[in-house]
Amino acid sequence: MSVPDRLGAPAAEPVFGTVALIGLGLIGSSLARAARRMNLARRIVAIDASEEVRGRVAALGIADRVTADAADGVSDADLVILCVPVGACGAVAEAMARGLKPGAIVSDVGSVKGSVVAQVSPHLPKGVHFVPAHPVAGTEYSGPDAGFATLFVNRWCILTPPEGTDPAATAAVRAFWEGVGSNVEEMSPEHHDLVLAVTSHVPHLIAYNIVGTAADLETVTESEVIKFSAGGFRDFTRIAASDPTMWRDVFLHNKAAVLEVLGRFSEDLYALQRAIRWGEGDQLFDHFTRTRAIRRGIIDLGQETAAPNFGRPQSDED
Amino acid sequence: MSVPDRLGAPAAEPVFGTVALIGLGLIGSSLARAARRMNLARRIVAIDASEEVRGRVAALGIADRVTADAADGVSDADLVILCVPVGACGAVAEAMARGLKPGAIVSDVGSVKGSVVAQVSPHLPKGVHFVPAHPVAGTEYSGPDAGFATLFVNRWCILTPPEGTDPAATAAVRAFWEGVGSNVEEMSPEHHDLVLAVTSHVPHLIAYNIVGTAADLETVTESEVIKFSAGGFRDFTRIAASDPTMWRDVFLHNKAAVLEVLGRFSEDLYALQRAIRWGEGDQLFDHFTRTRAIRRGIIDLGQETAAPNFGRPQSDED
Repeated sequence: MSVPDRLGAPAAEPVFGTVALIGLGLIGSSLARAARRMNLARRIVAIDASEEVRGRVAALGIADRVTADAADGVSDADLVILCVPVGACGAVAEAMARGLKPGAIVSDVGSVKGSVVAQVSPHLPKGVHFVPAHPVAGTEYSGPDAGFATLFVNRWCILTPPEGTDPAATAAVRAFWEGVGSNVEEMSPEHHDLVLAVTSHVPHLIAYNIVGTAADLETVTESEVIKFSAGGFRDFTRIAASDPTMWRDVFLHNKAAVLEVLGRFSEDLYALQRAIRWGEGDQLFDHFTRTRAIRRGIIDLGQETAAPNFGRPQSDED
Repeated sequence: MSVPDRLGAPAAEPVFGTVALIGLGLIGSSLARAARRMNLARRIVAIDASEEVRGRVAALGIADRVTADAADGVSDADLVILCVPVGACGAVAEAMARGLKPGAIVSDVGSVKGSVVAQVSPHLPKGVHFVPAHPVAGTEYSGPDAGFATLFVNRWCILTPPEGTDPAATAAVRAFWEGVGSNVEEMSPEHHDLVLAVTSHVPHLIAYNIVGTAADLETVTESEVIKFSAGGFRDFTRIAASDPTMWRDVFLHNKAAVLEVLGRFSEDLYALQRAIRWGEGDQLFDHFTRTRAIRRGIIDLGQETAAPNFGRPQSDED
């Protein structure tokens, strides 16, 4: 994998004492690599329930300690980051809570914020700070081997601190994410969940759906779908190859916003469908013209490459 | 643009005498470049109704002759390829018909085949061969400057010769496409139109639609959509930036197949939506698991890169 690395110089002194990461998948293992590379933590503790994952983390050497015991693993931590699927956050918070030291900061990386706040907050002891976070970054690959230190460079990370959160705790979490190369924004959990429903959750559902629809056609073979996918379909298959557990949880835990955006999507699609049925070419043309400007904005903001076809190699031989 | 070039050695002798290309956009101008590079034509004539396009083609030096007159431009051609939007094929065929020499082969590159056959065939004089073709290749950019010689390398080109077509004419068109690096398949226009509705047309419509839905939300700003697009949305914006005229024509001319596939897509989407509403996590998980295999097939067949995030540079600074 050739991912350009534009992380700057590491911090002269570690920014945090001990950072504990719970769940060492794509995101957790990327954070471990980035935190070490950027000298953000004096010590990194990796906590994972899976023996296989712990074995890989130990072999990769991306943490100072690897353990299955959440409460024990977090006992020295100044910053604990939950990097587990959204549906597991409550149980993990409950399991680790008794180990948390006073003044510790708890954060997470969940793609849904309202539900995570509701699940985690009740378990946290007084004197522990909770600053929920969501890095809008990832790839279609999963697991500790898929991570890399530059995953968060120039990506946004959204913080959703509840009212009354200690500003110093929020500032520390911000410093961590800026340390791994992210741009940081703050908003309410509710607004986050609506924004992400549009920019991430519904696009994933639609991609999963069209790939399924294509696979189910009796009159077109799967081999044909695969062969002729360069006509556009292949673009959808990337996000439809993302981690199924993570995405199941996202949809179950961001139900209201996803259903709201899906309703609008279907309404709009019916309008286009009707324009096709009735041959209303001008309506189609006008719609297709305005969507170009949005992509230009994304490219201009550095969230996308301007190279044709995402800069894919033109052929697999290369 | 750094597109790897895996075209092989050019033909020792030109494969065709004169090749006339009508419409010098992304596809037509790429064919001009590829045909010259691979020595497929002794002479290339570029025909375009737009003065601006003719000026660019002349400046780029990718054709031996540039003209606005279709009938005159095709008069020496052994092979004429229509590279205009699907909706313009009938008018262009009518305009050029009187110039065609006996034995000439006419082909096209339209994304819809049934309609093109119906539009073009009535205008062709006896003794002229018609071998419709569709290269499943492209980028989100348009116009003569966007073309490049390797666009068709390792992409499929589908031929849909009507019953009774001279096999020698079909073989000649096949040789041309193989010459520019494509893999060639043959099928009926009807089957082509259904396959492409799934692998290209409906994916484009869905992409255009979600980008529009996102832009129309009152509660999420366009700036937020752009910022947080790395969560999945940006993948859709690429094909939603494609040429509006071309795509308007595709939908108007492949109405039946597009409406059929759209109907299935919506039905399947409602099933997923219902699973979210009722919290049926197992159904979501199962659906999300099977779609991974399709992407693997596309990668294995060389129609897609295995690099995370399509191999995009990790940040725009690079």
